[in-house]
Amino acid sequence: MAQEKKLVEEITPMGEDFAQWYTDIIKKAQLCDYSGVRGCMVIQPYGYAIWENIQKALDARFKETGVENVYMPMFIPESLLQKEKDHVEGFAPEVAWVTQGGNEKLPERLCVRPTSETLFCEHYANTIRSYRDLPKLYNQWCSVVRWEKTTRPFLRSAEFLWQEGHTAHATEEEAQSRTIQMLNVYADFCEQELAIPVIKGQKTDKEKFAGARETYTIESMMHDGKALQSGTSHNFGDGFAKAFGIQYLNDNNELEYVHQTSWGVSTRIIGAIIMVHGDDAGLKLPPRIAPVQAVIVPVAQHKEGVLDRARSLKDQLARKFRVKLDDSEKSPGWKFSEYEMRGVPVRIEIGPKDIEKNQAVLVSRMDRSKTFVSLDNIEEEVDKLLTAIQEQMLAAALKNREEKTSSAVTYDEFKEQIAQKGGFVKAMWCGDEACELKIKEDTTATSRCIPFEQENLSDTCVCCGKPAAKMVYWGKAY
Amino acid sequence: MAQEKKLVEEITPMGEDFAQWYTDIIKKAQLCDYSGVRGCMVIQPYGYAIWENIQKALDARFKETGVENVYMPMFIPESLLQKEKDHVEGFAPEVAWVTQGGNEKLPERLCVRPTSETLFCEHYANTIRSYRDLPKLYNQWCSVVRWEKTTRPFLRSAEFLWQEGHTAHATEEEAQSRTIQMLNVYADFCEQELAIPVIKGQKTDKEKFAGARETYTIESMMHDGKALQSGTSHNFGDGFAKAFGIQYLNDNNELEYVHQTSWGVSTRIIGAIIMVHGDDAGLKLPPRIAPVQAVIVPVAQHKEGVLDRARSLKDQLARKFRVKLDDSEKSPGWKFSEYEMRGVPVRIEIGPKDIEKNQAVLVSRMDRSKTFVSLDNIEEEVDKLLTAIQEQMLAAALKNREEKTSSAVTYDEFKEQIAQKGGFVKAMWCGDEACELKIKEDTTATSRCIPFEQENLSDTCVCCGKPAAKMVYWGKAY
Repeated sequence: MAQEKKLVEEITPMGEDFAQWYTDIIKKAQLCDYSGVRGCMVIQPYGYAIWENIQKALDARFKETGVENVYMPMFIPESLLQKEKDHVEGFAPEVAWVTQGGNEKLPERLCVRPTSETLFCEHYANTIRSYRDLPKLYNQWCSVVRWEKTTRPFLRSAEFLWQEGHTAHATEEEAQSRTIQMLNVYADFCEQELAIPVIKGQKTDKEKFAGARETYTIESMMHDGKALQSGTSHNFGDGFAKAFGIQYLNDNNELEYVHQTSWGVSTRIIGAIIMVHGDDAGLKLPPRIAPVQAVIVPVAQHKEGVLDRARSLKDQLARKFRVKLDDSEKSPGWKFSEYEMRGVPVRIEIGPKDIEKNQAVLVSRMDRSKTFVSLDNIEEEVDKLLTAIQEQMLAAALKNREEKTSSAVTYDEFKEQIAQKGGFVKAMWCGDEACELKIKEDTTATSRCIPFEQENLSDTCVCCGKPAAKMVYWGKAY
Repeated sequence: MAQEKKLVEEITPMGEDFAQWYTDIIKKAQLCDYSGVRGCMVIQPYGYAIWENIQKALDARFKETGVENVYMPMFIPESLLQKEKDHVEGFAPEVAWVTQGGNEKLPERLCVRPTSETLFCEHYANTIRSYRDLPKLYNQWCSVVRWEKTTRPFLRSAEFLWQEGHTAHATEEEAQSRTIQMLNVYADFCEQELAIPVIKGQKTDKEKFAGARETYTIESMMHDGKALQSGTSHNFGDGFAKAFGIQYLNDNNELEYVHQTSWGVSTRIIGAIIMVHGDDAGLKLPPRIAPVQAVIVPVAQHKEGVLDRARSLKDQLARKFRVKLDDSEKSPGWKFSEYEMRGVPVRIEIGPKDIEKNQAVLVSRMDRSKTFVSLDNIEEEVDKLLTAIQEQMLAAALKNREEKTSSAVTYDEFKEQIAQKGGFVKAMWCGDEACELKIKEDTTATSRCIPFEQENLSDTCVCCGKPAAKMVYWGKAY
């Protein structure tokens, strides 16, 4: 097992080189691997199992709100992509083009979907006739392609997995309410399932989605002080409806345009899980989405009765938890490091002395704290510990974000905080894109969002000094 | 609702035009819709919900055998596709090629995966080192593209959804045993979940998968007497391992090649569900995969108390079944036809008189039989009826297949049976591809499989009269 030994020992400390720490964890926890296709990743079983748990939790939340899943083609004819002007300008530079099918050159190029607004619009134009057909609340789970120059696993890859919801409504109010509803679904999902606290807010015009009237976002804070856009929800108004001719007869028999939304979360969120929770020992996975919630490590497993007891414990716990028994020949100490590195929330140690005392040892991935628990009520104890870890992780992430959030009134303060401290810097903004551009040029920070929870830090824009319109969260971002 | 009214009335009778019947059902039950991309379909909510139930049932069966899910890139570099000679010859003529990324011409063409053996092989070559890394039991759920000339929804489309399992083993025996294991998983799934009986057997060399040593198949029989290949499982031996250099150190520290398998089931199986079970009234969905297992249709719903009782009944049944209440303004008779057309297994009628008598009416989609049941034990009654329908559907499909199966000893008999009766014709075969080609030319029938359950119908090949090697199922196929 020399190869695996190397894997555990070689995680670069976070403080030394954060980017390398991130890459080491992904490689060594076997979340994903590079492929021979530039910028495309192989998502390995452990990484994919996290994604499956994310899918399950999100999909259930979507369906509770009436959303139905569908599947659209992966190709978009060039003429279809071009129907909405802002949208094509935003996406055309970064799409992959299919020009040949079998041995024939195609009469029209097809792009591999970078996002599927145009396909949903075409379908809606074909199928929506009357107000009785509304709302349409569709979602699809699929992969999309964006031809990025520089790529990083999960965070930015040429192909990634996501869900994209696309809805059509009779009224503007209903579309706006769905836009915010889905943003709230995302925020709740991040906090409850991933233990990642998020800032909810609106994107500035400069940062909004190509073709959207308004884009809303949830922003999270990584260990290195960079922000990560973790999910977005867009209100399209009737812009796409007009470009694609999506009309319905209202109950007065008059033709009206529909109002649309779209919203998405991608495998990039796995990058957030790594960078919000991980430490120098490796991954730390929130119990609710961890592929393995508890690992049983037998101690002195060759002694009579140990493996038998470990196995019956496994069978017992497997009815309630995602549990794994590692009865391989590696040493217990070796296994301890390995499952810490892989972020398993709870380790259960059981050896001959424990069995004699009818007990086991529970070790928390959160702080390595040990508890001796009776085997008679181990289910309740594991359950309690998992719940506690989930809460502790959210609290720790919130504390970390608070420590990495500051506010600035003068431009000098602002520049110093971005440069020295990183994190989120709250500051007032006049609403002018010129200030966003200047801030980006001076600091590389961007406006992350105009938060719903506004504060009045001062009356003037931190950059130009003109009257302030809004408070904005600024930061460097992935 | 004039539009929907038309939908129900216009199903072409099966006996009049089977192909049109099939297309009508798909369109009118809103399983899928055409898109603007040639040969690509939009899978609508009702069709996708069937696929989700198929996924859930298959995925659970895979995981029980130790399979793990992963995700591979959707692109394959041309040079990678070419590494296994037979494989590239089989697939290159029908792939879509990406030649441009953003504004740049790619240095090497990428094909959109028609299947992912080459990608799994590359990953296995990178990650398998020792016998301790084996077996690898990977599967992925994804979409694939095959640039077909003529397409039909679900049965043959340029893009379709499927799962593809890819395994690597230390020994030939283990690979063979996994190949058969997965074929059995498929057969069990088809019979238990879809109520579709299948013939298990081996493909002839002519019909096997490009690059496989042996291909095994499950074949099912449609209402029109055509066969449908419903799932395949391939043993690759060490052919791909040699082409891609996938070697491991055995426990004597010697390098050996791995032995591989792959196996897949696709959205084409939805075509089988339609054509095995449907009738002139529309779809008939097996209860175990039906998106709606029971629909509640209130009668005289404007009378006091009817809707309230229907709603509480819905809430009660929803804890155990996938149930829907249709309280729209359409007439009950209209709703009866609509849910019959959509293949909902059980209809529950409840009106003022029923409520007075504390009863409801259960109507089976199988034979329209009506049962009056007490509301006190309606859960058990619905459960019983769903179980009965599932069994009846399997029995009916089996009976239909038996009626459509004959055997032939002389070539004249054979040709007549294929032409007059269709269905499966069992006949002896010498093992020579020339006879398969002649049979195909004379009758358009192909060898469907060499069944595991052999019979000795005669000692000579039905086509050439030379000594017979095997009994084969022949038939026209989708």
